[in-house]
Formats: sequence, C-alpha cells, structure tokens
Amino acid sequence: MKSIIIASTSTLHGGSYLDYLLPTLQLHFKNCKNILFIPYARPSGVSHDDYTKKAAEAFALINIKVKGIHEFENPAEAIKTAEGIFTGGGNTFLLVTQLYKNNVMQVLSETVKNGTPYLGTSAGSNICGLSMQTTNDMPIIYPPSFQTLGLIPFNLNPHYLDPDANSHHMGETRETRIKEFHAFNSIPVLGLREGSWLEVKGEKITLKGNLTARLFKQNETPAELETESDLSSLN
Amino acid sequence: MKSIIIASTSTLHGGSYLDYLLPTLQLHFKNCKNILFIPYARPSGVSHDDYTKKAAEAFALINIKVKGIHEFENPAEAIKTAEGIFTGGGNTFLLVTQLYKNNVMQVLSETVKNGTPYLGTSAGSNICGLSMQTTNDMPIIYPPSFQTLGLIPFNLNPHYLDPDANSHHMGETRETRIKEFHAFNSIPVLGLREGSWLEVKGEKITLKGNLTARLFKQNETPAELETESDLSSLN
Repeated sequence: MKSIIIASTSTLHGGSYLDYLLPTLQLHFKNCKNILFIPYARPSGVSHDDYTKKAAEAFALINIKVKGIHEFENPAEAIKTAEGIFTGGGNTFLLVTQLYKNNVMQVLSETVKNGTPYLGTSAGSNICGLSMQTTNDMPIIYPPSFQTLGLIPFNLNPHYLDPDANSHHMGETRETRIKEFHAFNSIPVLGLREGSWLEVKGEKITLKGNLTARLFKQNETPAELETESDLSSLN
Repeated sequence: MKSIIIASTSTLHGGSYLDYLLPTLQLHFKNCKNILFIPYARPSGVSHDDYTKKAAEAFALINIKVKGIHEFENPAEAIKTAEGIFTGGGNTFLLVTQLYKNNVMQVLSETVKNGTPYLGTSAGSNICGLSMQTTNDMPIIYPPSFQTLGLIPFNLNPHYLDPDANSHHMGETRETRIKEFHAFNSIPVLGLREGSWLEVKGEKITLKGNLTARLFKQNETPAELETESDLSSLN
C-alpha cells in the first residue's frame, strides 16, 4: 500500500529545515530506523555529501538515521532495500537527469508503489506527478525525458504563488504558466502552497496543512480546495 | 553584418505592446517594408494568427507590414527571403520545439548572422543566446535540444527580477537559479531587466535602455553593468 508525503516545501519562512513536518514524519516513518536520502537535486549546487548531512541533522531530531544514495555502489539496490526514502528539493531538471542517468527512475516508482514510505519536498515532490512539466525550475541540464514517477495521477506545482496585484513585473504569473501548460496538455495541475502537503495512503490522496490548494484543469476555471480535501478521484 | 535588437520584454508596465521600442525599431527596420513574424512561442496559448495580428498592429504604427511564418508553405524559405525578422515572446520551450520541428533553427541563425535585421523580445530574445537554459519558462513541451541561435556568445535571462527582501516565499530567487546553472555550465548569463535591450551591430554588443543589467559569471560575484556598456568581449 502506497504511503507517501508530498510537501510543497522543506522549509517555511522563519523556520528550520523540515521542522514544521517533523511530527508528521515521525508517524510516517515510524517503522524506519534508517532512511535513504536522494540528494540529486542539489539546491544552489550543494554537494551530495553536504546535502545529505543537512537531511541527517533534521531526521536525527526524530531518531532516524539518513544515508545518501550516492554512498551506495548500487543505487537501484539501495532503493529496493530501503526502509524509507526521502528525495529533497533543488533543481528538478538535475534531479530527473540523475534519476535517469543512474537508471533508477523506474525502480524508485515501483518501490514506492509497493509500499516503501516516501517523502518528497519541492523537486522531490514534483517528480511524484506524471511529468516534471509544471516545475518552476530553470533547465540547467537536458534530461532524457520529462516523464517522472507517476505516484499520483496528476501534476504538481510546488511553492505555488498567487499573482501579486501590486507587481509591475510583466513576466508570466504562475497561473499564466500553468494555463500555457494546459494549452498543450490535459493533465490536472495542483498548485501546492508552502505549508501544504499531500498524504497518499493506498489510493487515497488527501490535502494536508492549514492552507487551501489551487486546482487547475484544462478548459476549466481554477478552483480552491480546502484542506482535508480528497483528491483520489482527480485524474 | 549582424543587426539585432534583443529586448527583455515586449511590453512595459502601463504601456502597450512594443510602444517603448518603436522609435528604436523604426531605425532598426528602416530598410524594411515587410517583416516576418515568428509567433511560435504563443503566450497564454494564443493562436499563431491572433499573435501575428497583435504584432502587425504595433508595426503598422511605423508603417511596416507583418506576415506570420505559419502563413508560408516553406518556413525556411520565408526566413531566407525576409527583409527583417521578429520573434515574439511566450513560452521558450514551445518556441524552440517549433523551430526544430520546422527545421529552421539553423537557417534562422545563419540568416541573422548574415545581416537580416532581427528583433527578439522575451522568449524571442532567450533564443539569441547559446542555449535556452536560463529561461524562466515552464517546460510545457519537450524540445529536441536546448541549443539555440548563438547570435551572441553568452546566455540571457530576460525579465530579470531582483530578490524581494520582503518576500516570505521560499522558492528560489532568480539569482539562486542562475547560480545553479553555473554549478554545471560556464556560459556567462546577462540578467536583462524589463526596459533594457541589447543592440548588436556586427560584433559590437551594447546595453541599451535606462537601467543597469546584472552579469553573472561562473565563480564570480555578480556585477551591475551601466547602460551603454560594451559587452562585445563577454564570452
């Protein structure tokens, strides 16, 4: 049975890394003494080691040990045998490229579908959707494909931002960008604000946190979903 | 001799389409009665016809007729025989995909290098660099390559935005994104604010408009360049 936490962000303004999620993660990973960390997204270009250290420090607060996938000789085997898995944020193009390059995109999808508890934040959440095509990230590297894990039957836009009515900037708003996606794709997109997450238990998908989320469907007016909304039938 | 205008944006806040650039364009296209418009980037998913009409309305003010590349049976021939060329903004992933799909990326590069006057705005400016890897756009479609026209020896970030010190949003700033690009790429990146443009005359590249531009080089502190700065030696 799938057991997944898909969070918009790792860190809230004024908070520390993962702190707002720790009570949730303590329950989510209650059967894990060790988890596997996938640091491939490398925020700001940080090294795999330094990024893993940061994750380990947060998980130490709930008595869980963390080891980076780059420390294993066989990354596919590391995924298959993990007690739990966490993919951190950073650049989604880089993350997806590395997952393909190391030949673990499919095994990661299968392993999580088979029940290994998974946590994603930001880029690590983006890849839970059908494709990475609604990421906010810069295409700093050319991935072999935009297809991702498909753990949920729609796409995500993490760090969702409402348009700023006072802005004089003429670049596209997030809503305009998602509208452009829907000019060519029919996959629904959930704009997940910072502080929101999805809880996936088996086939049940529930919106968590204190905020509403914004749902975009092709040829429909966007809708605000209340927290605790059931998204299981969205596809 | 190259003759190119590379603008951050088509439209300034409170202004109308291209209005702030019209005096410049009147000189730039002074030998053109007709120009070819490339509407492939389709902002907000607008049709090629509607987008071309918008460009035609602006250019009518300086007595230049506009025809869309999609109106020609042979797009490569349309580029080769154009008096002048304008590529409008929108989604860079879509623009680049269409340029490759219609087999005109190379002929467009060669034609502009050979002296056909060119105007790019936003996505149409992004493609003037070595690659589209510093675009702000959403990857709504998978292009065959991220390589672009290479009309200038560096990359651009149009609609460049300074970090907002008052923001509580935890998504990456533009500067952080460009830093991530430089973790894996050595190409310089020029952050071009709305209202700035580059003028390319032969091998001379000059920053125009009233604003400074922000220059990012790998392993260097970003620098502010004054208007009228000469960027010819940047590579």
